[in-house]
Amino acid sequence: MKIICLQEKLKEKLSIVQNIIGKNLTLPILNNILLKTEKNRLKISSTNLEIGINTWIVGKIEKQGSITCPAKLLSDFVNNLPNKKLSLEAKNNSLIIKCDNYKAQIKGLNAKDFPIIPKVENKKGIKINNNILKTSLSQVIGMASVSESRPEISGILFSYSEGKLKIVATDSFRLAEKTISDIEKSDVNFSAILLQKTAYELTRILNDNDDVQIVLNNNQIFFESKDVQLISRIIEGQYPNYQQIIPKKFKTEIVFDKNELINQVKTTSLFSGRTNNINLTVMPEKSKVKIFAQDVDLGENTTFIKCTIKGRKLEIDFNYRYLLDGLSNIFSEKVYFGMNDALGPALIKPIGDNSYIYIVMPIKPA
Amino acid sequence: MKIICLQEKLKEKLSIVQNIIGKNLTLPILNNILLKTEKNRLKISSTNLEIGINTWIVGKIEKQGSITCPAKLLSDFVNNLPNKKLSLEAKNNSLIIKCDNYKAQIKGLNAKDFPIIPKVENKKGIKINNNILKTSLSQVIGMASVSESRPEISGILFSYSEGKLKIVATDSFRLAEKTISDIEKSDVNFSAILLQKTAYELTRILNDNDDVQIVLNNNQIFFESKDVQLISRIIEGQYPNYQQIIPKKFKTEIVFDKNELINQVKTTSLFSGRTNNINLTVMPEKSKVKIFAQDVDLGENTTFIKCTIKGRKLEIDFNYRYLLDGLSNIFSEKVYFGMNDALGPALIKPIGDNSYIYIVMPIKPA
Repeated sequence: MKIICLQEKLKEKLSIVQNIIGKNLTLPILNNILLKTEKNRLKISSTNLEIGINTWIVGKIEKQGSITCPAKLLSDFVNNLPNKKLSLEAKNNSLIIKCDNYKAQIKGLNAKDFPIIPKVENKKGIKINNNILKTSLSQVIGMASVSESRPEISGILFSYSEGKLKIVATDSFRLAEKTISDIEKSDVNFSAILLQKTAYELTRILNDNDDVQIVLNNNQIFFESKDVQLISRIIEGQYPNYQQIIPKKFKTEIVFDKNELINQVKTTSLFSGRTNNINLTVMPEKSKVKIFAQDVDLGENTTFIKCTIKGRKLEIDFNYRYLLDGLSNIFSEKVYFGMNDALGPALIKPIGDNSYIYIVMPIKPA
Repeated sequence: MKIICLQEKLKEKLSIVQNIIGKNLTLPILNNILLKTEKNRLKISSTNLEIGINTWIVGKIEKQGSITCPAKLLSDFVNNLPNKKLSLEAKNNSLIIKCDNYKAQIKGLNAKDFPIIPKVENKKGIKINNNILKTSLSQVIGMASVSESRPEISGILFSYSEGKLKIVATDSFRLAEKTISDIEKSDVNFSAILLQKTAYELTRILNDNDDVQIVLNNNQIFFESKDVQLISRIIEGQYPNYQQIIPKKFKTEIVFDKNELINQVKTTSLFSGRTNNINLTVMPEKSKVKIFAQDVDLGENTTFIKCTIKGRKLEIDFNYRYLLDGLSNIFSEKVYFGMNDALGPALIKPIGDNSYIYIVMPIKPA
């Protein structure tokens, strides 16, 4: 294998593939990146056996062939080189890199031993704009359960039907649901649970305003955008029927200024101690909510926020972290809270945008 | 105690004092900040028993008095408040803070139990511009020994005589010496070893273009600038007579482009493996230095750098980290290397600035 290409391009492509590579002691080739010529392009691939990423770089191919070499060393080295032409050449299981005044030899492993990354077999799927998918995933991704005891909720529900894609995550204390509408209709409806890691990688690598093609196929999900493919296993199992817990009617409805609410929750949370517990008292007659936290060792804080309230008064406790997680994924100036009582779920959503809802369970009063 | 002041001012002053406060489980009051009225000002103090910091804020004093309260909670709370007037009031060993819509009560401890921070007894000392002292300390500070087995070199030599202040640090593998000249002459010559922590605090808190007054007194060193005082113990013991190891003559002298050298050293260092070892071959006949590193598992890199060479050829090994530490504290475009052989110390210094020298020991060839 021998190819001449530009340092800047190679650096960019290596950054796309290298993130999923960890330190694998039992199977050292998993620490490596695969470089393989394909006609007039060099294919650059990585895999952690759950997720595989392929990307391509155009260059002057002087000799077909392939090699694998350690991802971190290769990236660190290429990142440090000047932005000039460089040559990559495979020789005796090493990669020889020449650029400007530099000549390096990086010890590699035979490409024949690199795990096979599955290929897309059918191309039937849906198409979404990269930026829209990226933003939508990021609004939901952090709410997935960190525990692996219920694998299905450790992932992200990714469910397409009739022109709408729903992206959902929950850890059973809170739930976020994002709906992407206006997708060009496809006759392939599907429902899959993405690994959280897969969703994170997508938000990282979908960096242009192109479209991404999404295909579900034999327990693998394929994402393909310009010059980059991500293939991942999906989580088996049934996603909980979360629709039933979303309240439809509310006895107390509030509209807050979002940033003011975030500030007051953050400041008050300093006094929430180990419980993370803050208390909201809704006072419709004063058009105010009192936010309060108290800890026997630290002290206490009280603050009041003006807001629009419809319905009846209420006192309710929340884990302040769950409130902030939801609020930080709402991009509107005003935010809606719908509640019924101190025990039932609250619904939080942006004003003027029906594509996102966030459900949070209150903390039972002591 | 009761005082009205501005949130922004209080925030700034808390950030000055709070850094030295750690988590002290045996003496909880050391986690606290002391607030104490002094005529028309509020004094804000912290101590870790080795270093004490005092600063002052002007406000409307409504009642004289004092209190201590947890540094982190107080800072976090004040940082989150809006930039408006706030009132601080001590009541039943708690600090009541009111600002805008917020009312907090932070549990404190009695100010009588706060350790006494020593006072400056005589005012004889030297005066240096804050920015000059700060930059000079930062060029030296990182070279002090991390080991406490030789306490005297775990600190920074701070030695004034005849209008010159020398700031020196070494870990016996390398040494940095900075000289500040043109100090207004004082009849008090002194030599002290600063704690590394004290030096770091000074670089953090000396933030304006004012002067700092420095006084040595009974094993304590005092730094006083506008509205801020730092008092620290010094390290007892004799600083090594380092002057004797500074070579005066060189058989090989090189002038490098500093940034190019840094880049090549960094890139080559990726192949230095666990030894951190890189090899320099000085080739006077080619006006080039070859930089090389090799590791049996990783591979190798060779690069050449053009430079001006006077004297004879030489092959010499360095720990690349020590080279980079020195180079990163040199601010000139060109950098001078003076060497004699593969075993003796090398001297590195900026071109056109005699105030800074960096001495580094080579690694013995295997």
